[in-house]
Amino acid sequence: MTELERMGASAKVAERTLAVASTKKKNEALQSIHAALLKNKKRILEANAIDIEEAEKSGAKKAFLDRLLLTETRIDGIAAGVMDVLALPDPIGEVISMSNSPSGMTIGKKRVPLGVIGIIYESRPNVTVDAAILCLKSGNTCILRGGKEAISSNSVLVDIMREALKEAGLPEDCVCLVRDTSRDSAKELMGLRGYIDVLIPRGGAGLIKTVVENAGVPVIETGSGNCHIYVDDSADLEMAANIVENAKCSRPSVCNAMETLLVSDAVSDKFLPLVLPQLKKHDVELRCDEKALKILGNAAVPADETDWKTEYGDYILAVKTVSGIDEAMEHIARYSSGHSEAIVTNDYAKAQRFLNEVDAAAVYVNASTRFTDGGEFGLGAEIGISTQKMHARGPMGLRELTSCKYVIYGSGQIR
Amino acid sequence: MTELERMGASAKVAERTLAVASTKKKNEALQSIHAALLKNKKRILEANAIDIEEAEKSGAKKAFLDRLLLTETRIDGIAAGVMDVLALPDPIGEVISMSNSPSGMTIGKKRVPLGVIGIIYESRPNVTVDAAILCLKSGNTCILRGGKEAISSNSVLVDIMREALKEAGLPEDCVCLVRDTSRDSAKELMGLRGYIDVLIPRGGAGLIKTVVENAGVPVIETGSGNCHIYVDDSADLEMAANIVENAKCSRPSVCNAMETLLVSDAVSDKFLPLVLPQLKKHDVELRCDEKALKILGNAAVPADETDWKTEYGDYILAVKTVSGIDEAMEHIARYSSGHSEAIVTNDYAKAQRFLNEVDAAAVYVNASTRFTDGGEFGLGAEIGISTQKMHARGPMGLRELTSCKYVIYGSGQIR
Repeated sequence: MTELERMGASAKVAERTLAVASTKKKNEALQSIHAALLKNKKRILEANAIDIEEAEKSGAKKAFLDRLLLTETRIDGIAAGVMDVLALPDPIGEVISMSNSPSGMTIGKKRVPLGVIGIIYESRPNVTVDAAILCLKSGNTCILRGGKEAISSNSVLVDIMREALKEAGLPEDCVCLVRDTSRDSAKELMGLRGYIDVLIPRGGAGLIKTVVENAGVPVIETGSGNCHIYVDDSADLEMAANIVENAKCSRPSVCNAMETLLVSDAVSDKFLPLVLPQLKKHDVELRCDEKALKILGNAAVPADETDWKTEYGDYILAVKTVSGIDEAMEHIARYSSGHSEAIVTNDYAKAQRFLNEVDAAAVYVNASTRFTDGGEFGLGAEIGISTQKMHARGPMGLRELTSCKYVIYGSGQIR
Repeated sequence: MTELERMGASAKVAERTLAVASTKKKNEALQSIHAALLKNKKRILEANAIDIEEAEKSGAKKAFLDRLLLTETRIDGIAAGVMDVLALPDPIGEVISMSNSPSGMTIGKKRVPLGVIGIIYESRPNVTVDAAILCLKSGNTCILRGGKEAISSNSVLVDIMREALKEAGLPEDCVCLVRDTSRDSAKELMGLRGYIDVLIPRGGAGLIKTVVENAGVPVIETGSGNCHIYVDDSADLEMAANIVENAKCSRPSVCNAMETLLVSDAVSDKFLPLVLPQLKKHDVELRCDEKALKILGNAAVPADETDWKTEYGDYILAVKTVSGIDEAMEHIARYSSGHSEAIVTNDYAKAQRFLNEVDAAAVYVNASTRFTDGGEFGLGAEIGISTQKMHARGPMGLRELTSCKYVIYGSGQIR
């Protein structure tokens, strides 16, 4: 047995206890984690300082350092998140259906945990706690594998959570951390069949791709977002401009930000000059097709095929004029990553067509794509946004971390 | 573009039409397929005769030939299955939830097709039609890849379905068949990212394993069944004997048949001699641990570690005595494939513990594991029995072939 297999086996054993733990017990553990995080602030900050120092030494960029950094306020925020999850209803045990079978058995379908969840993520140490507590509340044990840059912070955070679990009377192994941050350990984790029920990668497109290509266990893909907004000729153009500005500029690094603007030929002459100052206010670079380029002139640069495919995650916007909703939907069908897509229109039939025909986790009429989020969708918290169609689609909350089981009450039935 | 990529692209285009096709349209296509199967019996039988002849030449076993064989009656059965699926409610379009968001948008969650489903299966040509019509009714296009032994039958069945689809006004590419039955084509299909939304392997453990290990697209594992029955000391022993006989002998080749009998030490002296004649009536070979062997004497042979792991699919039963429910559940946790598990008991607390603590798709008290089946569970029809916890668990009917999508009705909201 390798070290990781031993960890998998321990997680499986812990899961048998956690799967049947009462809501009260799980909430006590969350309460205990909340208290422990606040009590151990100093210890966390010291560990984080080591990661920050290492990162600085290796010449990491400012944005990267910011993602890695923990402060007193950030630890308060992480701890507050624990109480938010504590307050959410426990999804486990819900009876989804129950009925009598023709042969007289009672067949119920019940919500149960997924089991052991592997989570592979990058540099933000807050994910360590966020992911662990969502798993805990939904009765799943987790094996966390964070980035090597955050290993010192992650180790201490997991130590603290394990101590708190023990104190609350749940097995420490409900939360496990892979402390070997080599590529090999990640690869081995992806293939840990028989121990891991589901693997959730959280991070950039490169990480997701590696996991999907190498995993030997079921994976939920999250977070890739090449999102479009189509401005129809019947749109309220002022509304459209505000939505476009918001979807591109309110937080360009996130997955629900817009990457390509599609504009109906019929209104491009009017709309593009209208939206331009709102985008230029944020120094957005515009990469345009020929017609849009003609309209925007020096304010834009030419786009090529690559631009339609790219999730910039930055103040860059691709712009394409289209003959109407059909060409817009063709473009979306071809380039969308299936995350969030929006139309701005006042035409009832086109709104309905867009909602029905566009294939994405979230499809909007007259609203910004930025709303695709667990909190906004009423899930309370989210572990990621699924861009696959299997198991869960869109923001994944506690319920998306569950499976089901048939329970059958018989009285001697044979078939 | 390879031939398979071209097929994937065509299936994706067809899916855009099928995903929004009305229930009426889909039912007309099913009606048309039903009629075409009956009208083309001769053509189907001729094609099947070629497969049978080839298989005989290559020295195939009787059981294999039987699985491959089509007869007039079997075609009638396949056609009747089409009408059964036609009669089922259309899962697509169901609004799972709808509510207003804090910002005043209406957010609905709607049932939509998974998209393009790849199905890799073995020699039974009836799967070709069964799988295609379940996909069709649930709005999914399918890419079928059957075994090379059935290629002549499968080709004609798919030709007939495609002609019928065309006649009904739906794209032929709603049902595609990979006619190249080399290993390479299967491998390529498993990696067809961007075209296939979900891959469902149907067949033996070897096939499932190959698909899981090689797939680059999401997979739903089906059908592996190492099922146990635990006879508790409080069991009605006659009931237990009937359940054991039924679970082992009514159809040993299927995945919900029992493979290992666990008996409480307290009743093994009484129970094993009681059930013995019922098993011997079917010539069941008994592979026993030491204590059971002592009780059964010459009627049994010794078991080893391999027996606890094996899905015999045959008239062979592993038998193990255990000290009680805890040891029984330990054994199940270790060796179960997570398909169907049963306890026979009259003890309320033990029944509840077994239902709660055993981790399998279907957990029974006082009934045969043989009931794990889409028809028995009220799903109408099934495309397979999922033994994974992600997406679907247990028998998969039409609803398990769907995903969901958030549809958001805004009025200019920005975040």
